[in-house]
Amino acid sequence: MTNTSAFKSALASIAGETNAVLDRLLPPVPGPEGRVVEAMRYAALDGGKRLRPFLAVASSDLFGVPRAHSLRVGAAIEMVHCYSLVHDDLPAMDDDDLRRGRPTVHKAFDEATAILAGDALLTEAFTVLSAPETHPDGNVRAALVAELARAAGAAGMVGGQMIDLRAGGLALDASGLARLQNLKTGCLIAIGCRAGAVLGGQSAAVVEEMGAYGLKMGLAFQIADDVMDVEGSAAETGKATGKDAAAGKATFVSRLGLEGAKNYARSLADEAVSHLGAFGEKAGLLREAAVFSATRRS
Amino acid sequence: MTNTSAFKSALASIAGETNAVLDRLLPPVPGPEGRVVEAMRYAALDGGKRLRPFLAVASSDLFGVPRAHSLRVGAAIEMVHCYSLVHDDLPAMDDDDLRRGRPTVHKAFDEATAILAGDALLTEAFTVLSAPETHPDGNVRAALVAELARAAGAAGMVGGQMIDLRAGGLALDASGLARLQNLKTGCLIAIGCRAGAVLGGQSAAVVEEMGAYGLKMGLAFQIADDVMDVEGSAAETGKATGKDAAAGKATFVSRLGLEGAKNYARSLADEAVSHLGAFGEKAGLLREAAVFSATRRS
Repeated sequence: MTNTSAFKSALASIAGETNAVLDRLLPPVPGPEGRVVEAMRYAALDGGKRLRPFLAVASSDLFGVPRAHSLRVGAAIEMVHCYSLVHDDLPAMDDDDLRRGRPTVHKAFDEATAILAGDALLTEAFTVLSAPETHPDGNVRAALVAELARAAGAAGMVGGQMIDLRAGGLALDASGLARLQNLKTGCLIAIGCRAGAVLGGQSAAVVEEMGAYGLKMGLAFQIADDVMDVEGSAAETGKATGKDAAAGKATFVSRLGLEGAKNYARSLADEAVSHLGAFGEKAGLLREAAVFSATRRS
Repeated sequence: MTNTSAFKSALASIAGETNAVLDRLLPPVPGPEGRVVEAMRYAALDGGKRLRPFLAVASSDLFGVPRAHSLRVGAAIEMVHCYSLVHDDLPAMDDDDLRRGRPTVHKAFDEATAILAGDALLTEAFTVLSAPETHPDGNVRAALVAELARAAGAAGMVGGQMIDLRAGGLALDASGLARLQNLKTGCLIAIGCRAGAVLGGQSAAVVEEMGAYGLKMGLAFQIADDVMDVEGSAAETGKATGKDAAAGKATFVSRLGLEGAKNYARSLADEAVSHLGAFGEKAGLLREAAVFSATRRS
């Protein structure tokens, strides 16, 4: 088995475990409030790649963290990712009808339910992180909450979403785009890597190294998204393509050219890998994940 | 000074302290993401009564908790309350243009910014609770996070909002309405009371007693809202009145009559006070708060 197929196999395996954990963490409920839980399940159990849970679990594995803990952290991060997609797809935001080949939540349910389901997924992530089942030490649980809240909030993902909404008027250069993406998607990709070190009781320096790996692989991941928007088809990516260009939005491809964007992604993947030096062969999956992020087609 | 004026004075004083804490916790930020922080500040620094922070602080005072801790917890709960108002006011939800006499966030900014500002306020609440400045013991911080997430999520506030959206088709009786309100508003009112006991290192039994007080005073508070919707004027309440009746929504007044609703609120306030028996004179402010909730005019 090549390294890449080892990575793809691990990604699929952790995705399966993550789906089972999410299913258990979001049981259907009776009563009229059950509709919002149905919408949460629709949003969270939709068969995404589960890259963020993979990163949480694979990073935790470096430090001998039990899977029972790292899978819960991965599921919590995925809840936040899914909530952000639900809100991003709303008519007042990106106004998307299709997500991973299915109707978006506000299309399958309605706008109000989509707003509430997003809110509740975000909230539930903190229920999961703060529960003793995630880690016996409350200090670790509180640190995980602090990490996720920072990554998801105005200084992280939401800040990036705000910039993205205004990006049409900002004429961002490649460095401005990198900052936008580091906030909008990078922080939430890096949080799984940081959380692995936190769960493993590592020093702040190790947490930072893991975070630097995650941020750089996350940026490579996003640049590959821009490349796919130009090169890919809806059948491959599961969503509408050519949309960025149609919207006149600056992308890494429009700023750096197609080859320039691909090269930038590859160099970021190399930089990401350089942060894993201390972990030797144990970090093989994470190295492959960085390569995949820079070169993916879906 | 009568007890009631002691309560009103304490409420105003804690509101002032809470506003100062919120102002410090939500500093303006430069850069294009600053717009979402402006909207968060607009939503959170609008001069509400700050009943939830009052309950967090007054409950904490029973157990000798330093104000530096309880004010942060109160501010975190208020962030969640404010986020819920921002999202509730959206066109896809209650579609309100006016809140506390000012344009709602989506009117003052735009819908997308309002969605993001709500998301970020909810997230920031968990940053605040998980920080060591809120309590030196991580186990206490994690417990506070768990309490707030449960109160705010699908098993609490969001669940209640979901029921409320569907209430027109549910023909709820008074007991169904009480359940709706316990979820929609009660949980987030009770959380401050519970948090005071958690911050004070009290037993689960004491946390439950405080929560029972909060839930009952919270229901009284909500029934008074229905009474005001019939009896009040927009000038007094700072929002449109007569709206429930116009929308054909079941309310405590439509189910129990005006006097029945007032009596129910008063009996709930009495029950709430009965849960404070163990705390003697120290709980005077909380007793007055229950009476105020049942009989308020704004």
